Amino acid sequence: MQFASDNAGPVHPKIMEALAAANEGWAIGYGNDPLTERAIQRIRDAFEAPDAGVYLTATGTACNSILLATMAKPYEIIFCTPEAHIVEDECNAPEFYTGGAKLSLIASRDGRIDPGALDAEMAKRGAWGVQGPQPGAVSITNVTERGTLYTTDYIREISDITHRHGSKLHLDGARFANACAALACTPAEMTWKAGVDAVSFGGTKNGCMGVEAAVIFDPATAWDFELRRKRGGHLFSKHRYLSAQMDAYLTDDLWLDLGRSANTAAGKLASALKQCRDVTFRWEPQANMMFVDMPRSIHRRLKNAGAVYYVWEGTLDGDPSGTATARLVTDWSCPDRAIDDFVRLVSGD
Amino acid sequence: MQFASDNAGPVHPKIMEALAAANEGWAIGYGNDPLTERAIQRIRDAFEAPDAGVYLTATGTACNSILLATMAKPYEIIFCTPEAHIVEDECNAPEFYTGGAKLSLIASRDGRIDPGALDAEMAKRGAWGVQGPQPGAVSITNVTERGTLYTTDYIREISDITHRHGSKLHLDGARFANACAALACTPAEMTWKAGVDAVSFGGTKNGCMGVEAAVIFDPATAWDFELRRKRGGHLFSKHRYLSAQMDAYLTDDLWLDLGRSANTAAGKLASALKQCRDVTFRWEPQANMMFVDMPRSIHRRLKNAGAVYYVWEGTLDGDPSGTATARLVTDWSCPDRAIDDFVRLVSGD
Amino acid sequence: MQFASDNAGPVHPKIMEALAAANEGWAIGYGNDPLTERAIQRIRDAFEAPDAGVYLTATGTACNSILLATMAKPYEIIFCTPEAHIVEDECNAPEFYTGGAKLSLIASRDGRIDPGALDAEMAKRGAWGVQGPQPGAVSITNVTERGTLYTTDYIREISDITHRHGSKLHLDGARFANACAALACTPAEMTWKAGVDAVSFGGTKNGCMGVEAAVIFDPATAWDFELRRKRGGHLFSKHRYLSAQMDAYLTDDLWLDLGRSANTAAGKLASALKQCRDVTFRWEPQANMMFVDMPRSIHRRLKNAGAVYYVWEGTLDGDPSGTATARLVTDWSCPDRAIDDFVRLVSGD
Amino acid sequence: MQFASDNAGPVHPKIMEALAAANEGWAIGYGNDPLTERAIQRIRDAFEAPDAGVYLTATGTACNSILLATMAKPYEIIFCTPEAHIVEDECNAPEFYTGGAKLSLIASRDGRIDPGALDAEMAKRGAWGVQGPQPGAVSITNVTERGTLYTTDYIREISDITHRHGSKLHLDGARFANACAALACTPAEMTWKAGVDAVSFGGTKNGCMGVEAAVIFDPATAWDFELRRKRGGHLFSKHRYLSAQMDAYLTDDLWLDLGRSANTAAGKLASALKQCRDVTFRWEPQANMMFVDMPRSIHRRLKNAGAVYYVWEGTLDGDPSGTATARLVTDWSCPDRAIDDFVRLVSGD
Repeated sequence: MQFASDNAGPVHPKIMEALAAANEGWAIGYGNDPLTERAIQRIRDAFEAPDAGVYLTATGTACNSILLATMAKPYEIIFCTPEAHIVEDECNAPEFYTGGAKLSLIASRDGRIDPGALDAEMAKRGAWGVQGPQPGAVSITNVTERGTLYTTDYIREISDITHRHGSKLHLDGARFANACAALACTPAEMTWKAGVDAVSFGGTKNGCMGVEAAVIFDPATAWDFELRRKRGGHLFSKHRYLSAQMDAYLTDDLWLDLGRSANTAAGKLASALKQCRDVTFRWEPQANMMFVDMPRSIHRRLKNAGAVYYVWEGTLDGDPSGTATARLVTDWSCPDRAIDDFVRLVSGD
Repeated sequence: MQFASDNAGPVHPKIMEALAAANEGWAIGYGNDPLTERAIQRIRDAFEAPDAGVYLTATGTACNSILLATMAKPYEIIFCTPEAHIVEDECNAPEFYTGGAKLSLIASRDGRIDPGALDAEMAKRGAWGVQGPQPGAVSITNVTERGTLYTTDYIREISDITHRHGSKLHLDGARFANACAALACTPAEMTWKAGVDAVSFGGTKNGCMGVEAAVIFDPATAWDFELRRKRGGHLFSKHRYLSAQMDAYLTDDLWLDLGRSANTAAGKLASALKQCRDVTFRWEPQANMMFVDMPRSIHRRLKNAGAVYYVWEGTLDGDPSGTATARLVTDWSCPDRAIDDFVRLVSGD
Repeated sequence: MQFASDNAGPVHPKIMEALAAANEGWAIGYGNDPLTERAIQRIRDAFEAPDAGVYLTATGTACNSILLATMAKPYEIIFCTPEAHIVEDECNAPEFYTGGAKLSLIASRDGRIDPGALDAEMAKRGAWGVQGPQPGAVSITNVTERGTLYTTDYIREISDITHRHGSKLHLDGARFANACAALACTPAEMTWKAGVDAVSFGGTKNGCMGVEAAVIFDPATAWDFELRRKRGGHLFSKHRYLSAQMDAYLTDDLWLDLGRSANTAAGKLASALKQCRDVTFRWEPQANMMFVDMPRSIHRRLKNAGAVYYVWEGTLDGDPSGTATARLVTDWSCPDRAIDDFVRLVSGD
Repeated sequence: MQFASDNAGPVHPKIMEALAAANEGWAIGYGNDPLTERAIQRIRDAFEAPDAGVYLTATGTACNSILLATMAKPYEIIFCTPEAHIVEDECNAPEFYTGGAKLSLIASRDGRIDPGALDAEMAKRGAWGVQGPQPGAVSITNVTERGTLYTTDYIREISDITHRHGSKLHLDGARFANACAALACTPAEMTWKAGVDAVSFGGTKNGCMGVEAAVIFDPATAWDFELRRKRGGHLFSKHRYLSAQMDAYLTDDLWLDLGRSANTAAGKLASALKQCRDVTFRWEPQANMMFVDMPRSIHRRLKNAGAVYYVWEGTLDGDPSGTATARLVTDWSCPDRAIDDFVRLVSGD
């Protein structure tokens, strides 16, 4: 009953096989090997973006932060939601990589940035003059940190606002596959066709060992990314082992299958929990993550039985009838039995 | 005939097996898993340093730069040699992570920092006052970037100077195993017993996929390292896959065996080359790397036959009797046959 | 009718005289001159802090940002209000000087930080672990950016929260004199006696040409400040011209007299405006700054007559009966006649 | 007998008068006042550069560092001499403002950068690939830190090399006036006509209180400078007091007259010292600064008589016949009598 995070599951066997296969003989380092070339090509194909700059990093924080550093100057602002991963969970990495740009928090609707509030704030900052930081970039996350989704139309609305104010739009796609699967859209439709300028295309949370691809649709900033990656210590010498993961991940739509599996598990879990008494959903789950309010008595039953998940809000101490919020995340490896066991404990049967 | 770098060879089978074995079921992320705990313990044991702060990163640049950031303030100086990896091959990562500390270059003896010059420069900077940057840290590399070795006595001499000026000593141990094997000393003898304050203990160049350990002998700065690692995007979510490598690397002295193998191959290569006409060694090779001057005619013969190595100085264009310098590096996987073939081409037999 | 800012008025004659008097002969640079020593001593006396580290800078942004850099690490958070000068008007200087610390915005009461919200947020961040930035410092401004005041009790409440969470408290005293005069307290009472760890003691907005003093009550971080000041390009070579200003400013309580004059002018203006129809105060003015809502028709009358002030919210375009907010600031040089003329235009007499 | 530095003398009376004259009534802050406009126009006129971006800062370190930050990216190199002010005397400010660019030291000829060595190093770094930092900018100082001069032809040679490698050339003109006076060239001839891209035009060392002008010949980077200046805390609110200095400095060629006076004093001092026994010049002085080797016995006689100057190399302790090096600097205010007294003490008459 592991619902703590989609980064706690194992690496998919096909990725492991690819790593083993890549381990033959000698390969020149730093990404100048044929396997890296092939992986990059696969990404360009998947995104229908033959000219895109594509670079691999091993962590999502690196991928997000280095991309943002190519999009916003140190005296500029990156607009995002208060719950964005880049705000909450990257220990000031975006500020570090950009040289001190400011993250300005815009009200969110269920995890999705409020277009009107974004537009107003960008206008205000753009008119502020030299005293204040200038608009630099906008960053959104899909699947959002609340388990909800931006539709491609929603993304287009955000990108229009962003570009109107002379800024660029970044998409944190740590759960890109889950979003694509849930929206039934193509990578291109969710990104450059909707006005996204650069995307962090995640692998780690979806069956890889540790690899994310920065996909930069305007190749003019690609060299800037490459040097910033190296400067951040994120250029792998034995680069083939990042590439092998991404190569396998993109073969025969493995990435999409794994995202779909995680979503299916979440859907099953959500459906069952909705039947349980005393369980309330904070937001309607749309992909592989959900937030549910439950009485402490249920939480304690779950924890005692070994269920693993984060208590997102509230504590388990105190009156048993008081509630606390669980964050539940599924990944491709989530067994049906874990879901069944979990639901049985919640329902108290 | 691959002598380009010790990061171009494959991952050792035992490391691959450890990765496969670690891929069972679920593990909480970010280093809070039992395998990470075990790997850290193994490192503390190997260094006879039960209280050391130990953190894993995937690249040596990250390990070096984050350590330096815990040792030198932004308005301070890190003293090192002109050929140091942190100067030449990290694209300003140390400056980035320290927030702008200066690398001050001290003359080297065959890759080893000159103690007298170091002492004089630290004294000068320490007396400079607020106008100039202050002494902050000293960084040395063993095996050096010239393939030579610091003895433990030499390290002690450097650490005495360093500490006398109120600074800390960092050891870049990208080739730590090769140095330990060649010096026939223990990790403790090469580090804290000789006055080293923190070391980058390398795995990547010696059979791992991508893992280095920061070993901090003064645990007071450990939490600072941990937060800077996260801020740099170098805290792996699926951390067990870094730990598995390090765990296997330290099991049954695999690390030392691999370092020894690489040194043996280099020794064999050097001995044979010394028999060849027109081959001159720039520095006496002491571990697994050497720099040899050879006529262009020999270089061309080698390159035509598919030998892979860096031309370190000079070019292959021009008069065939003119010389150029080859950098030759061996790793644990270097087959005897590659050495034999290479030497045969050099000798022209 | 100049109410745009207290940095738009002239330098007080006594400050100018002091500059002229300092311009005799030769003086060693960089603050090693006797006049600097005397100015520093005057500040220590005024703050009853004989051991305080005291450094002069020419701008408030420099003074604030360098102080914050000595109080918060790059992976930490500085808590402040959304309207803080360090957020709105320093173009990411605090992020720059700290190396990328995050400003976290806490709800304000009329410009004053909400103690409960601060406590809750500091607790949350302190428990977040390595993923998120850690609590580092708290910064408050007195007089606040809304023209209101923290009482010394209020400051004590904030410093208790701050220290309980292991952080340090910074006071932006760009209008320190106005606050002291309005609160009828001593500098010590408003700062270290209330738990403030370091203060930016402003001179520029109160009759000086351009000088602010960083007063650091814990001398352990003083040398860190000094080197960061130099590194920021804020150590003046001809330092006596900063010191002369501060020396005169602190002679015979000139600083307090000027702050009192500015407050008196503001009080007179506020009293008169309260008699006017259609004028509403956003916050009760307590020192030398006020925000008033007035119909556009009044704004236009004022602007046509040459009144100078910032329209803080709203625009002057549109329906004459619609309102917009004026920010009105007085300084020591504000003539009674400017107030009378302004009020006459507002009242429409 | 004050020869310590040209920043230790007083402010010229005309500058003081200009400050007093500027202190009339009210002026909008942050450089939007008419006096600032006029000062900027005077600088553009003096440089025959009607489109240049011109910004004032109060210190040379700020002016140099912010300019360099607009010219070199964080992963790039700034090439300069080992004795450059930006290396020795700015406490890592260039590294701070650029976000961690590296200063690479090129051998100097008497303080002047060696063109061949510069060319070779830029070529090497440009070919290094992503591993190493890239060529970014070149910075030279005129008058050099050794008291020598770059001719306009020499500057052209450097700018040709710089541009050929895709970089930009910065001129640190802390002693711009002394150089112009000594070379008998116009500001335009010494800068953009010789290929300089941006210059720090100094006032502080030449009779001003504290003001330097950044002159950017390519206006495309001007807005970047302006925001970086604000972010560094170097945008003065009461900006008119910087502008007043620069305005007076450029009126009726005051700047040039003062530079010429300082040079004349130095010439007189040098001529007389050349007649003295046991005095050796390290470099032929060309403007207002010289380095002379003298026996310790002479140094002691000077110091005992109250002469003030820096002992640049060596110490005054030890054998009286041993030598130490004095750095002697004159400014516009240097009285003939100080020179006479100094020379008399040296000659022992």
